[in-house]
Amino acid sequence: MKVAKFGGSSVSNASQIKKVLDIVNEDPERKIIIVSAPGKRHKDDIKTTDLLIRLYEKVLNNLNYQDKKKEIIQRYADILEELNMEKTLLTTIDETLETIIETLKEQPPRLYDALLSCGENFNAQLIASYNNSKGYKTTYLSPKDAGILVTDLPQQAQILEEAYDEIYKLRDIEGKIIIPGFFGVSKHDFIVTFPRGGSDITGAIIARGVKASLYENFTDVSGIYRANPNVIKNPELIEEITYREMRELSYAGFSVFHDEALQPLYKHRIPVVIKNTNRPQDKGTFIRHERDINNKNVIIGISCDKDFTVINIKKYLMNRQVGFTRKVLGILEDYNISFDHMPSGIDSISIIMRTSQIKNKEKDVLNAIRKKCDVDELSIEHNLAILMIVGEGMNKVVGTANKITHALAESNINIKMLNQGSSEISMMFGISVEDADKAVLSTYEYCYHGICLKNLCKSK
Amino acid sequence: MKVAKFGGSSVSNASQIKKVLDIVNEDPERKIIIVSAPGKRHKDDIKTTDLLIRLYEKVLNNLNYQDKKKEIIQRYADILEELNMEKTLLTTIDETLETIIETLKEQPPRLYDALLSCGENFNAQLIASYNNSKGYKTTYLSPKDAGILVTDLPQQAQILEEAYDEIYKLRDIEGKIIIPGFFGVSKHDFIVTFPRGGSDITGAIIARGVKASLYENFTDVSGIYRANPNVIKNPELIEEITYREMRELSYAGFSVFHDEALQPLYKHRIPVVIKNTNRPQDKGTFIRHERDINNKNVIIGISCDKDFTVINIKKYLMNRQVGFTRKVLGILEDYNISFDHMPSGIDSISIIMRTSQIKNKEKDVLNAIRKKCDVDELSIEHNLAILMIVGEGMNKVVGTANKITHALAESNINIKMLNQGSSEISMMFGISVEDADKAVLSTYEYCYHGICLKNLCKSK
Repeated sequence: MKVAKFGGSSVSNASQIKKVLDIVNEDPERKIIIVSAPGKRHKDDIKTTDLLIRLYEKVLNNLNYQDKKKEIIQRYADILEELNMEKTLLTTIDETLETIIETLKEQPPRLYDALLSCGENFNAQLIASYNNSKGYKTTYLSPKDAGILVTDLPQQAQILEEAYDEIYKLRDIEGKIIIPGFFGVSKHDFIVTFPRGGSDITGAIIARGVKASLYENFTDVSGIYRANPNVIKNPELIEEITYREMRELSYAGFSVFHDEALQPLYKHRIPVVIKNTNRPQDKGTFIRHERDINNKNVIIGISCDKDFTVINIKKYLMNRQVGFTRKVLGILEDYNISFDHMPSGIDSISIIMRTSQIKNKEKDVLNAIRKKCDVDELSIEHNLAILMIVGEGMNKVVGTANKITHALAESNINIKMLNQGSSEISMMFGISVEDADKAVLSTYEYCYHGICLKNLCKSK
Repeated sequence: MKVAKFGGSSVSNASQIKKVLDIVNEDPERKIIIVSAPGKRHKDDIKTTDLLIRLYEKVLNNLNYQDKKKEIIQRYADILEELNMEKTLLTTIDETLETIIETLKEQPPRLYDALLSCGENFNAQLIASYNNSKGYKTTYLSPKDAGILVTDLPQQAQILEEAYDEIYKLRDIEGKIIIPGFFGVSKHDFIVTFPRGGSDITGAIIARGVKASLYENFTDVSGIYRANPNVIKNPELIEEITYREMRELSYAGFSVFHDEALQPLYKHRIPVVIKNTNRPQDKGTFIRHERDINNKNVIIGISCDKDFTVINIKKYLMNRQVGFTRKVLGILEDYNISFDHMPSGIDSISIIMRTSQIKNKEKDVLNAIRKKCDVDELSIEHNLAILMIVGEGMNKVVGTANKITHALAESNINIKMLNQGSSEISMMFGISVEDADKAVLSTYEYCYHGICLKNLCKSK
């Protein structure tokens, strides 16, 4: 049994929805379908979810929201029209939105979650109804009826372990099942959304729950590239990647698949395939627990993300002081800051975090460190980019670090920080934001084509 | 005003002591002299301090200790004899040892410190007395009279901040001053020793206290080499090195100068020179707050130390969990383990420590981590060597990492771990113990002579 999830652009209009249902109906194994809210139909279009956010803001500020509501209803009206379907659903949509606003307007965080869930929810109903009309037995299930029981904190839904038993029962339903992505229901019967991009998470939860043989994630690209196509022209597609490699890549800028969505699949070793709704014949990229590794494909991909900040601390004889680092990390914890890397010398540490983590807290955090840790020097650097070279088994092949440092040196890029743990499948290079694209380009060309940017040398 | 410290081999017999006093008397700026206990006179000789430890063990086990005591007295008798001095000091030595044993035999840690201090203490008295007999006004000062007031925990002496005011007054004493190294006196009037090799620390404390213009550290080598002379034939001598560079090098195997001794000097920017008692005309190695750096001497030295252990922890989505690393470090703290490096990925950390830190605690520590931290994978690796490439400004020069990784790759050495912080003056490479010497050799030859071990390539 397969679980298939379709992203926003795959379900943005009638012709896309037809493509989706062709894919769904063609394979009897594709039993459970997770759908997103209608995405953009063209470059300047607005996603349904964003329309819902605007509606929420109107309500929140006690403004007249009828126009915004109409825009939303119109999105579904357009689709129904194109599909030659009856318009009865539009009444349900209107009534549902009004009921939500009426019931929850005094509880903004709840209102937000409930309104935003509508994008996926209406679309799932619409698509299920259309598929039924075409003669395919199809059941729409709300997340509540599907058993997606989650924690109660708004916008922070986490699946409850007990939910999986209920989800397993979906296997017994005949025909196709269509479930809206992006949200679950709490024990207090509130709608709670996953972090945005969360349809991937719904799909992963259902795939794990029904013990699917494959989780198909349909998007508008034919898989995952070895590097960002905005930086590298026609980068190679990855055929096979491990969960851990995928996570390292998606961490530093690869946004095809939400990395948190891998978590339910990871332990149960359910494979994922990233496929293109518009080119279903393409093989796509498989994400698995293990992959075949040989010396030629040790480096699976290269990514680079900007917007990192680093706090540098120097203290003479730091390594002799049992507990010093823990004290510093305790301060970060007090301010609820999670960090990503911590390269260190014997008398210094650099703590690297996403800039968003420390934004608006910077002064307080630095003051606290200064006050509590008796440091010799303390500084903060912004505009740091993190280049990640990712690949299982990379640290067992002599010369990998040399390849990368060679490519960077040839491009005159200074390495500010370096980090590779013993069991690690990635190498981290801290560089200037200005060098970010050049770093991806030079390492990509050198690792995959054996040529230096300057054409001064060739890889062995 | 200069403070000069002479190590054990510089004061091991009459002819060495004469060399020392020639050096001392020749320069009127050399006012305060710190002396060690008599060291080895030849390869198979026993250091006086080791004789004192044997005496301590006899006393501790209620055995007859007279033979051991006689051996110690004999060391000083030999020196007095060779210097044609009267033997009255020997009676003082005998009585002092007996008094210490009598008074402290029920308090072994105190007994240990008091007995061990004798090696330096008798030697200082002897040398001061000899210099006076030669017509040079010389005052022996016990650490108590010199104002070296320390904390009370046996074998762990730390200078008290208030001591420095008292030490400053030494400037007013006329003539030369000779002070025994290695110990101070606590407020409870107990003798407390510094960690072994602690004469360096006494010298540094006195140099800081009197605000010396230079702290001269006389040993049996003409300075600090760029790499271990046991691995590299005739390595280059370093003319000038910064405190921080010195500390990084001494951390990973350079034992010329006790790195903790730099601490009192560091903040007050008192320069140190490492000189050879046997070749005082040699320039020696200067340790300063800053040094001139140009692209050619960016790497000041290369060192490699064995006997490291690494704990590897993997946990999916580790970087999202605020406080995870702190929890792990808290466990190390509970077991009083200090670690040295912590390279990390986004889902894993490697914690590197000296094997001695975790010896006998390994099982408990791993169990505690497993129990409290909910990790995915946990492993421990022994037999790790740490290669340190040290140099101020190294991280500002493009291509340094490339040089090192190139040399290692050419020698077929696998880099298990990599670490370089942003403000760092060293690069750390975790490698197998078996590769340790080869790593020093290949990086040394490539960095300083531009040749690969295999002669396959030349550095640019």
